Formats: sequence, C-alpha cells, structure tokens
Amino acid sequence: MAEEINVGLIGYKFMGKAHSQGFRDVAFYFPDVKPRPRMKVICGRDEKGVTEAQKQFGWDEYETNWRNLVQRSDIGLVDIATGNNVHHEMAIAAAEAGKHIFCEKPLAMNVAQAREMVNAVKKAGVINMVNFNYRAVPAIRFAKQLIDEGKIGRIFHWRGFYLQDWIIDPDFPLVWRLQGDVAGSGAHGDLAAHSIDLAHYLVGDIDEVVGHQETFVKERPKLAATTGGLTAAGSSEKGEVTVDDASLFLVKFKNGAVGTFEATRFAAGHRNGNTFEINGDKGSIRFNVERLNELEYFDRSDPGDRQGFRVIQTTEGSHPWMHAWWPPAHIIGWAQTFTHQVYELMTGIATRKNPHADFEDGLKCQIVLEAVTRSSRERRWVSTSEI
Amino acid sequence: MAEEINVGLIGYKFMGKAHSQGFRDVAFYFPDVKPRPRMKVICGRDEKGVTEAQKQFGWDEYETNWRNLVQRSDIGLVDIATGNNVHHEMAIAAAEAGKHIFCEKPLAMNVAQAREMVNAVKKAGVINMVNFNYRAVPAIRFAKQLIDEGKIGRIFHWRGFYLQDWIIDPDFPLVWRLQGDVAGSGAHGDLAAHSIDLAHYLVGDIDEVVGHQETFVKERPKLAATTGGLTAAGSSEKGEVTVDDASLFLVKFKNGAVGTFEATRFAAGHRNGNTFEINGDKGSIRFNVERLNELEYFDRSDPGDRQGFRVIQTTEGSHPWMHAWWPPAHIIGWAQTFTHQVYELMTGIATRKNPHADFEDGLKCQIVLEAVTRSSRERRWVSTSEI
Amino acid sequence: MAEEINVGLIGYKFMGKAHSQGFRDVAFYFPDVKPRPRMKVICGRDEKGVTEAQKQFGWDEYETNWRNLVQRSDIGLVDIATGNNVHHEMAIAAAEAGKHIFCEKPLAMNVAQAREMVNAVKKAGVINMVNFNYRAVPAIRFAKQLIDEGKIGRIFHWRGFYLQDWIIDPDFPLVWRLQGDVAGSGAHGDLAAHSIDLAHYLVGDIDEVVGHQETFVKERPKLAATTGGLTAAGSSEKGEVTVDDASLFLVKFKNGAVGTFEATRFAAGHRNGNTFEINGDKGSIRFNVERLNELEYFDRSDPGDRQGFRVIQTTEGSHPWMHAWWPPAHIIGWAQTFTHQVYELMTGIATRKNPHADFEDGLKCQIVLEAVTRSSRERRWVSTSEI
Amino acid sequence: MAEEINVGLIGYKFMGKAHSQGFRDVAFYFPDVKPRPRMKVICGRDEKGVTEAQKQFGWDEYETNWRNLVQRSDIGLVDIATGNNVHHEMAIAAAEAGKHIFCEKPLAMNVAQAREMVNAVKKAGVINMVNFNYRAVPAIRFAKQLIDEGKIGRIFHWRGFYLQDWIIDPDFPLVWRLQGDVAGSGAHGDLAAHSIDLAHYLVGDIDEVVGHQETFVKERPKLAATTGGLTAAGSSEKGEVTVDDASLFLVKFKNGAVGTFEATRFAAGHRNGNTFEINGDKGSIRFNVERLNELEYFDRSDPGDRQGFRVIQTTEGSHPWMHAWWPPAHIIGWAQTFTHQVYELMTGIATRKNPHADFEDGLKCQIVLEAVTRSSRERRWVSTSEI
Repeated sequence: MAEEINVGLIGYKFMGKAHSQGFRDVAFYFPDVKPRPRMKVICGRDEKGVTEAQKQFGWDEYETNWRNLVQRSDIGLVDIATGNNVHHEMAIAAAEAGKHIFCEKPLAMNVAQAREMVNAVKKAGVINMVNFNYRAVPAIRFAKQLIDEGKIGRIFHWRGFYLQDWIIDPDFPLVWRLQGDVAGSGAHGDLAAHSIDLAHYLVGDIDEVVGHQETFVKERPKLAATTGGLTAAGSSEKGEVTVDDASLFLVKFKNGAVGTFEATRFAAGHRNGNTFEINGDKGSIRFNVERLNELEYFDRSDPGDRQGFRVIQTTEGSHPWMHAWWPPAHIIGWAQTFTHQVYELMTGIATRKNPHADFEDGLKCQIVLEAVTRSSRERRWVSTSEI
Repeated sequence: MAEEINVGLIGYKFMGKAHSQGFRDVAFYFPDVKPRPRMKVICGRDEKGVTEAQKQFGWDEYETNWRNLVQRSDIGLVDIATGNNVHHEMAIAAAEAGKHIFCEKPLAMNVAQAREMVNAVKKAGVINMVNFNYRAVPAIRFAKQLIDEGKIGRIFHWRGFYLQDWIIDPDFPLVWRLQGDVAGSGAHGDLAAHSIDLAHYLVGDIDEVVGHQETFVKERPKLAATTGGLTAAGSSEKGEVTVDDASLFLVKFKNGAVGTFEATRFAAGHRNGNTFEINGDKGSIRFNVERLNELEYFDRSDPGDRQGFRVIQTTEGSHPWMHAWWPPAHIIGWAQTFTHQVYELMTGIATRKNPHADFEDGLKCQIVLEAVTRSSRERRWVSTSEI
Repeated sequence: MAEEINVGLIGYKFMGKAHSQGFRDVAFYFPDVKPRPRMKVICGRDEKGVTEAQKQFGWDEYETNWRNLVQRSDIGLVDIATGNNVHHEMAIAAAEAGKHIFCEKPLAMNVAQAREMVNAVKKAGVINMVNFNYRAVPAIRFAKQLIDEGKIGRIFHWRGFYLQDWIIDPDFPLVWRLQGDVAGSGAHGDLAAHSIDLAHYLVGDIDEVVGHQETFVKERPKLAATTGGLTAAGSSEKGEVTVDDASLFLVKFKNGAVGTFEATRFAAGHRNGNTFEINGDKGSIRFNVERLNELEYFDRSDPGDRQGFRVIQTTEGSHPWMHAWWPPAHIIGWAQTFTHQVYELMTGIATRKNPHADFEDGLKCQIVLEAVTRSSRERRWVSTSEI
Repeated sequence: MAEEINVGLIGYKFMGKAHSQGFRDVAFYFPDVKPRPRMKVICGRDEKGVTEAQKQFGWDEYETNWRNLVQRSDIGLVDIATGNNVHHEMAIAAAEAGKHIFCEKPLAMNVAQAREMVNAVKKAGVINMVNFNYRAVPAIRFAKQLIDEGKIGRIFHWRGFYLQDWIIDPDFPLVWRLQGDVAGSGAHGDLAAHSIDLAHYLVGDIDEVVGHQETFVKERPKLAATTGGLTAAGSSEKGEVTVDDASLFLVKFKNGAVGTFEATRFAAGHRNGNTFEINGDKGSIRFNVERLNELEYFDRSDPGDRQGFRVIQTTEGSHPWMHAWWPPAHIIGWAQTFTHQVYELMTGIATRKNPHADFEDGLKCQIVLEAVTRSSRERRWVSTSEI
C-alpha cells in the first residue's frame, strides 16, 4: 500500500478549517498513521476565499470546481465539508470516480438521497465515513468500552440533549442554516443528528419515534452579508424561516430501552451543550461536550454507602487515543477529535474496512431524522421500518 | 379568628412524619403564623403503630378510624397523608364535614375523582391545598419571582426530570407503590406529578401531550413484610407489576413553549433527582432538588464576555422564607419545605383564600397525568381539553 | 437513670435558637434518645428578649441572671450559647454546681481559661461537650469512618478553608464579633476553630504552626443598633477593629502530614464556605458545607482508567444518623446537625462518657488557635508544646 | 522586517513536542503572525531520538550539539525546552550569539543564574520570554482583563494550588524530576513556579514569604529505564530523593493582599490540578486548569438575591485569542496555549518589545522560589528583598 494518499477537500470555512487541521495534525501525534494524508487540493467556488484558505491551511493546490477535483486522477480521498444540500451529488460523483469519501453530517437531505449514496459507495467499493466526530471524543469512546464490557448492563434510558442559543435574538438574520432548501432542517439535522448517532453507537437501533418540531421565530431579516462563521448581518427585508428551531422526540429502542431527545438553538446559556446520559441496571454514564475530557460514571457495584457519580478525567494514557497526546489532565480540545477521525479513516483505507460511522450509519441516522420529521408533521408514532 | 386550629392527620408513616414536623415547627420559625396549628389527633388503622407515632411526633390523641376523625367537632383541618387510593373518599367526607383540607399529591386516582373533590370543597367552602411541596422550596419560589419579574422573558423550553433508582433490582418486591389499584400509577403519579405541577406553576397551562410509559420489570416477588419507608422484603411468589416504571412525555404549553418530561425509578445514581430547566429569551434557570438551596440562573443581559450560569445560594434573608431560618449559606433541608407549606396553609385559612397549590391545581395536574396515560395507551397526541 | 434531664440554656439569639431546636427535635427523630432533654429554662439578660424567645422556642421558664440558672437544683445540663468572653466564668460555675455542660465554640478566650475549664469539669466529674457541630454532619462522620477503615491510608495533606464575605463593605459596623475584648479574635476563633477541630478529628494532632493574621479594614463605624443576627447598622463615629479579618496558617501534624488553613470574612462569593480536602496514599476526600449532604471521595484502588472523585450523597440509611431522617437524597439542613449533637450528648450523659468534642478537644483547639496567634505576632514557627 | 524567523529548538521530549506544535500551528490559526517561525533545527543529544522527533514534528534539520545550534548564523530564535539545569548555560550562550530566546520555566536553578541570564539578554538586546504558558490560557488572560478593568477591586486574597498525584506510589523510581542536581527542586520549581508567576501577573509583587517543604518518600528505586513522558521503570537499588514532594507557603503581597500557595505531587485524584482563586472587594474569580475553558466569576455588584459564581465559557470570539479558533463552546486544549505563546513571542520580536513573561518575570519568580526554600530551611519569614 502507498505511504501517502492525496486528499481533496471541498469546503473551506468552519468545517473546511476543522477538517484541514485533522489531516494536518494526524502524523504529528500518530506517527504510525498509514497511509499519511497529503493535503493536495482544497476546493471552493470563491477563488479569493479558497486561495486564502489554501495558503492558511497548507494545501498544495486549489480548485474552484468540485467536479474537476473529483475527477483528478491524483486524488485518492474526497472530503465533503460543504452544506448539506450538495453532499448527495458530490458523494455519488466521488464514488463513481472511485474515490474514498469522508462526508460531513448529516449525510444527506433525506433518506432517498442517503440510500443512493450508500448504494453508490457499495457499488464502487470505496471506503466511506461520515463525520460524526463525537464518536472520536476519548470520553465517549471510553463510554462505549464500558458499555461493551457490560459495566452499564441492560440499558433502560437514553437522555440526549444538544442545546445551543445562538439565534434567540429575533433580529439574527436568515443565514443558510435557517433555510430549508439549503440546510434541509434546522436544529434537527444539525444537532439532533449527532445525538441520534451517539444513541445508535452507544445504545442500539431505534424502533419507533414520536416527536415535535417547533419554529419559535417564524420570520427573520434576510441576509445582508455573512461576516464568517456563525455571525451575520441582516437587511431590513424579512424572510420566512423554513427550518425547525427545536426538535423534541421520544424513542423506543429495539432492545427495550427508551430515549428522550432534544435539540434546540433557543436554550439560553448553552453555547454548545451536547450532553447525554445512559442508565442501565449496572451503572450510568453521562457526558457534556463543554467538558469534553470528562466522563461521569456511576457504578452500582460500589459499596452502598460510597456510590456516586465519578468524574473521570479521560486523559490517561490508557484512555482511547490519549497516549498520543500529553500527560494526564493536559486536556485536548474539540478540534482534536478530527485528528482521531482522520486516523480512523486512514486505518480504514489501509485495512479496506469502513471506519465508523460509515455511510450505512449515516443512512440509519437519516432514517430516524426523517421518522421524527414525519412524526411531527403527522402527529403520530412512526416506525423506522416504514421509512 | 381563633388563635389555634386543631389538626387531624390521617397517615403516620413517611408522609405522616413529614407533615407532623411541618405542623410542629411552623411557630418556632414563623412566630407570626396565625392560626397556630394544634397537633390534635393522628389517625391510622394499626393501633400499635399509630400510638407510637402519636407519642413520637407529639400529637394529643389518636384515632384508628378516619371517619371518626373527620366527624370530630373539635377538628378544623384534616390532613390526608395516606395512599392515593383513599384521598377521594376522605377528602369528600372532610369537605362535607366542613373541614379545611390538606391533601397529599397526587390529588386522586383519576380525573373523575379529582373533579368530585374540587366540587366538594367548593360546595363546602373550605380551604384546600395539595402538598406539592416543591413550590415551597425557596429556590423555586425565587425562580417564580424571576419569571414574574420578566427576567426569563418569553419561555421557549421546559425540561423536567424526576429520576430515582430504588427499584432497579428485579428482586425488589411488589410494594404498594408498584400496585396499580393502590398507587394508581408508578413513577408517573408519584414523580411526574411534581414536575407537571412545577411546569404549571412556572411556565403555564399545558395544551397537548404525547407520551410513553414503560414497565421494565414486569414481575416481582410478592411482598413478605414491609420494614418501613421505602425498604421491603420479598417472598418467593411472584406478582405482576401493574404500574409504570418510567413515564416520558412531550408537551405543548398554551403559551407556545414546549416541554420535555421524564419520570423514572430506573436511573442508576439518582436517588431523588428532581431537576428542571427553563429557557427563555431573557435568561434561563435550572434546579436540582439534591442541591435544594441552589438556583442556577443565566442572564442574557450580562455583558457578552461574562455570561454564565450563576450558582445562587438561595439562603439570603431576602430569599423567600429564609429570613426565618439561619444566616446565609446555612442550608435548610427537604423537610423544611413542609414548614413553609403549613405556613402558607395557615395564612390561607386566616385570609379565607386558598393557598397554592389548591385542589384546582391538583385537578389540573391530574388532567395532564391522565392525558399522558391515555396518550401512551392510544399512541397519539392527547389534548388536555378532551379529558 | 432518669428518663429526662432538665436543660438550662444561656443565650437566645442565633446560637440559642439553633441549640433550642436541637433539644426540641431530638426525640422526634431519635425516639430512643435517653435521657430526653426537657427544655426547662432559657436565660438572657434582656427580659423582653428572653421571654419572647422562651415562648417562641418552647422553654418552660426563663431567667435573666445566669448565676441563678446555674444554681437551680432542677437543672441537670447547662448549655452555654453566649459570646466567647463569658464561657469561662459560666462553665466553671456550672461545673462547680455539678451540672453537665454543653458549650459553644471556641471553648474560651485563651488557653489559660480553657485549661481551667478542663480542670473544673474533671474535678466535678461532669459530662462536657463543645459544640463543634461539623463533627455531626453525616458526610464528615462518614469521612471519619472511611479514614478509620484505612480507605484514605497514610495522610499527606490537609487543606482546610473557612471562607465568608459578610464584612467586605468597610461601612459594615463594629459588631461584637469585631471587638477583641468580647470575641477574643475574628475569623480565627470563629471560623478557623472549626477547621482546626476537624483537622484534629480527621487527621490528628498538630505539632507546629506558622501563620499570619490580617485586618484589612482597620476602622469601622461604631455600632448604632443591632438588628439581629449578623446584620447591623453603623453610626457616624469610627472605632478600631481589634480582631483579625483573615487568618492563614501552615501546620505540621505529628503523624507527618502537612496542612494549610485559611479563615477569612473577605472572600467575596462565599457566604459560609467551610471546605476541606484530605489526601492520602489510598485516596482523598473533600467536603463543602454549602453542599452539606455530599462527600467527594477518590479511591486510588479503582481501576486506573475509571478513577475519579465520586460525589456521594450521604443520605442513605447506612450513613451516620440518616436512618432517623428521610429516604435517600431528601437532604437535611445545617441545623439538623444540632439534633445529632444533642443525641450524642444525651448518650454521653447516659453512659457517663464524654461525647466528642469534649472540653479536652476544645482545649486542644484553643492551643492551636493561640499558637497561630503567637506565630503571627512573633513571626516564627510555634510548637503546640510551648503553649 | 523579515517575513520569517528560523527557530532552533533544544529538547525533543514532552516540552519539545509541545513547543513544536506551537510553532507549527501559529500561522494556521493566526495567519497575521509576523514574523512566521520556520521550524529550522531541532537539537538533542541522542541522534536516534532527535531524528525521529525531527521527522515527526516537522523540523528541517537536526543537531546533536546545542552549542553548534546556538552558533548557526541562520538561526534567529533559540528555544530552550530542556531540563532546568542547562537553561543558564544555553541562554547565556544564545544571548551572546545575539539570538532571541524562548526558555522553559523555571528560568534557572537559582537566583544567581537567573540574574546572569537577565543581564545577558539585556546586554545582548535580544527578545526573551519564559514559557509560563498559563498566561496564555484565554480564561486567565480574561481574568487579567477583569482585574485591570477594576471588576475585582482591591484584592484581599490569592489562593493558588497546583496539585498532582503521579508519585504517590513509593516504588515510582527516581526520575530526573526527583533529582535535585538536575531538577533544582521538586513540586516547588515545577509546579509552584506556575502559581507564583500567575500571582505576580494577576495580583502583584510579593513582599515576604514563609513556607515549608516536605519530602514524604525519602528513598526510591533508582531509575532503570525511562519509557517516555512521565512514566518510568525502577531498579532494585534505592537512591535518595533530593527534591521536595510538596511545598506550602504563605505570602504577603506589596499591595496588602495575602496569599496561600501549595504545590504537591501527593494529592490523590488531582492529575494536573492547577487552580487559583482571587477575592477582592468588588468580586472574585477562580480557575481550574482541568476545566481550561471556564472562568468562574462572582460580581458583588449583582443584585443581592441573585449573586453567585458564574461559570463563564471563555470561548466567545470576544475572549482573548478565541476569534482565531472555533465557534463558542468548541473548547481548546492545553497545548493550544503554546500557539498563543508563540504568537505573543513573534509579536514581541516584530515590535522589539519583550512579551510577558520575560526573563525579568522569570527572575522575579525565581526570587520567590528561593525565598520560600530559604524560609523552609531557616524556618522564618523571608523578604524577597533579601534574596
């Protein structure tokens, strides 16, 4: 196998930057990574923007047309870090061109797209991964280990919340994330997608859902100019918000557990509060991404008078990936999870085995997303099997 | 008005003890209380048990037949601290006898009973109160003040959980709280009732609900002998669990807010975790009864770079009721909320105005409880107006 | 032995009220208490004040002259809940009259007084106790159990802080607690005394100390009128503050551990932050009185990747005293520790064995207090053996 | 000015890696950095080790003799990331060669060395910086802003602890950090140095100190082989531990504040607990490096009934450096502080103005370190002016 693989990245803003540093850092911390990703081409429509990004992030070349990128014979891996509405088109083209694919979440705009994408990568036999990067948080990977070891036992409850607060102000303008035709959905696909994937990863498959989606602020100033990232300026004209502000749902898992989910951009005080708790008959775990390096663990087998949630710093060399970083309690940041993702992806390419989450996982998430949306629209329980 | 009112308490176990100390302590901490409750008669079926309780808790006399108690001309207030299945009968008899009534929550076994109880107290013109004692937690009363002052603004979200873990062990026996004919329901009426009442109190009326109730352990050893409180011993014979172990539901409030509720006895690590969070467009509040003297408050009007949830010790003299207790940060316990309840009740009797929560509030809670149960059974959204 | 013992309480303000409720509540929660304290006489100089307190707190009689009280033949136990400057006189008189004694902390104004008090109670053969009520916090008693079981192992570190913030405002007037002739010292005797006693209780005897005491605000308005408790109004005239605002010291324990102490009334945000941490070679414990029902415990024998401080709710029936109260996680308050103190005291009287902390413990604390003050004045290490 | 500066780094282990990534990342996140550091030469005695590091970390070349490195005309900045015992020699040689210098903390083995180093850089007119990287934590830089804005007011208290637990096991071998001739001191220079520097930075100059240093485990197995980082294997032969395990001290600041310090490697449960709290007459702040992205802030000007410590996520674009990273609450890690340090250093080189902490700051820290050690040895208060 080749020592290196050339990467072509589509997208150069928030996610483009985050992916770039993942490729850039992997061999610094994991010198055994194989193949090594070479930052070959970055792609964006705006030439000025993409050349600046190329220079800043350290890519060899740039393209302004993603179709060119996908067709380049020197590219082995296509990374799709764009808005949700083009994942489908890009991924299928990349698969048809025989490229391995790394794709931002949620995988697609709907289940139909996701199914086609899964079929395309299967047919092409390319390695594929969806960037559910929370799976690459050491605390969460360690939580998975505890569950697999039976330390949580039979699971009764999942309680997963993804709370943000950046659009409470009704004068915050109609950015692309608030436009249904571009974003597909609002908090639901952006935030709940993460929670759903973690529930799949840690608890199991979801059988049925019932939910409610709400748009608290129904009109907002149309966008004047984006100033980058999540900030933006509005114009005096108003436009309709065509995505959900919040999404709440209950689920039944196939294994008998029940789950509560909530995703919102209207929870004052929560900048990026991705939290979950799992309760089983042997113990419980809970996690909050704002304290990314901590896992709380309750062990029912502790003596009765000294039971309590332990705050574990998952920064020991024995915790997943942490041998590669720093001594205990020298915490890592959110972006470092991308380094782990890239490492897993490279290992997948080397071993010709999809890392997780793969497109099948992405489809599974998409099915739940769609089931919830249908449930909210039709005001009834919806089985994932009917999607 | 009389300086004293004679109280007759029915029930002498966990709740009987808690109520007793409320009556006993009120004038010690609130010497202005008027009328003063006189601990006249305690009532229980088991003569040995009730005489011990009479002596320990300091009641003047005892009765073994609650009908006698209710008819005694010297009793002005009847306190019903019994199992849920007899509230209805006792309250109606007490109302017909012209007694003021303090009743444990949930008010009744069902909405039909609760309606009759409301009618009875209205017809009799007696003061009535349901013991939703969390309303008497200083931190929660203070939260209500913040909301009423507009500090939270338009409310978007309620997130209320009442998590316990005392019946995870499948060998824990079939105590009365797990028997539908006595308890009415499981976690739902016992725990969610508190959350619903707080949501009514702090957010507003509930319009529609959708929910799911689950019984994880469907059979348990029949009860051999109760050793008091929540502990018990099982026999070798098994019986069916006829209540829910967990109850999850989503609601839409009439004011446009949405809410998530969860009540369970299967959340390892949570002995009595009654928590809620409210998010509005001006700020957020959150509370955990295991840290009863703290309220977390987020103020969106704080400067952008110094916003954060404040952990307020609600133990200042300026916090509700706290002038009566100790200097700041000398915390009070759970039981002290009963003292506040009794104080409110006495004031209600003196002013001939029902304290809250009254039977109407209890009925409102019962309607939501029943709507959720119906929703769970019929697998659909249920409007409170159809109950 | 008699079933009852008549108590005479001197002092009726903050501490008088707290002691009163301890006597009043003990048999309600601990019906096996023997002898039962009878609230016979409360004593204070101000007749109006003491009669109000007598009525509110439920004492049979009152006295305005403590010497009369001490001489009454019907009194079996004298409780001294007054300012520090009269403990010595009262305790010696009580001992000489053959009364058992319960005395507020710190025991005395200085070591000389404390020694005389110890001699007096020994000579008289009366039971004696100093109200170091934090020993009666279930979490702390449980911490002691863990230490005694060897769960903490060889202790290396004690870190004890008692932080308050009620006199930061320089216009706060010169209340008695700020006057050296009445209070003896400031934060030192009031707050550090508690920390020292807990260090003695949990770690062991102190060998040497070095410290520094500081008075940040050297002049304050003279007192106009006390409005009760810790609040007060100032006049326009200024007077000198003759006690410390803060006291910091390091200690070497006889067993080789080292300790850091700090007591202050100038730590903004800490209403009553009595915290400590103990680190040993087997584990660690930490405690914060503002979360009175919690103990944090770190067990080094946990598997390496799942070590962490556990937050234990010390509210199980198996935790010290907690069987007498409520189900798990129904927390108790600060005042309930007095109930435990009275229970221990009664048991001491019944068994003719001093409960702890006794006057010897009080003297030991006084010696450390004085060693620190001497160290601060003479700017050198001071051995407890030279006091 | 040149666009680039060539860096020569001495040391390639824990600190060499951390410094490397600082140089490597700065232009990725701060594209305006000027000059850009070029990773020219890495230096280490062990050729195999250093060539591996060169490759992994991305340095152009390597040297095995630091004297060669220092003399190379193409090197503009020498970075000393070695053991403490060679800082002096290297820094003086680098200064004499006219190189700018970045040096690990503590600056030197003693004050005499530090003074010579300060003189050397002054004489040479080179930019110099000591790597007190906690100054580059956004939360701490923000704390400094709050202090400078007067939000904390007159400072009364500093409480700074640096707690670790990695050598509790008496069989942990005698690594270089436990050897006085190499490390200079133990917890004192390694950990307390950070706390002292932060106290200087946030509170002000220290006037007098009194302290105690303790070595709990006096003999340990001699080192068999280092397995990298902080882990090691011991031999059967024992050797004397010649550094402190713990260092405790009290200080008086020149501005009237008082401070408590503690550094230890024997605090079970604390992997890297660098915490401090500052109390002033307007507010308080506290920080824990294990929650690097949070600052707790108490504002006494908040209304009395809603005061409380706010947990601020210092991840807003308005917080120091954070515009360069990710959206709010996407936390950064410990290593990212090195990126900030390099950015500050480059700006210092560009503007010909020392960034802080500079060698003068390093000397000031060294003086306090030495004063404490002298105090511990001579058992008396030591003024910084006598050092």
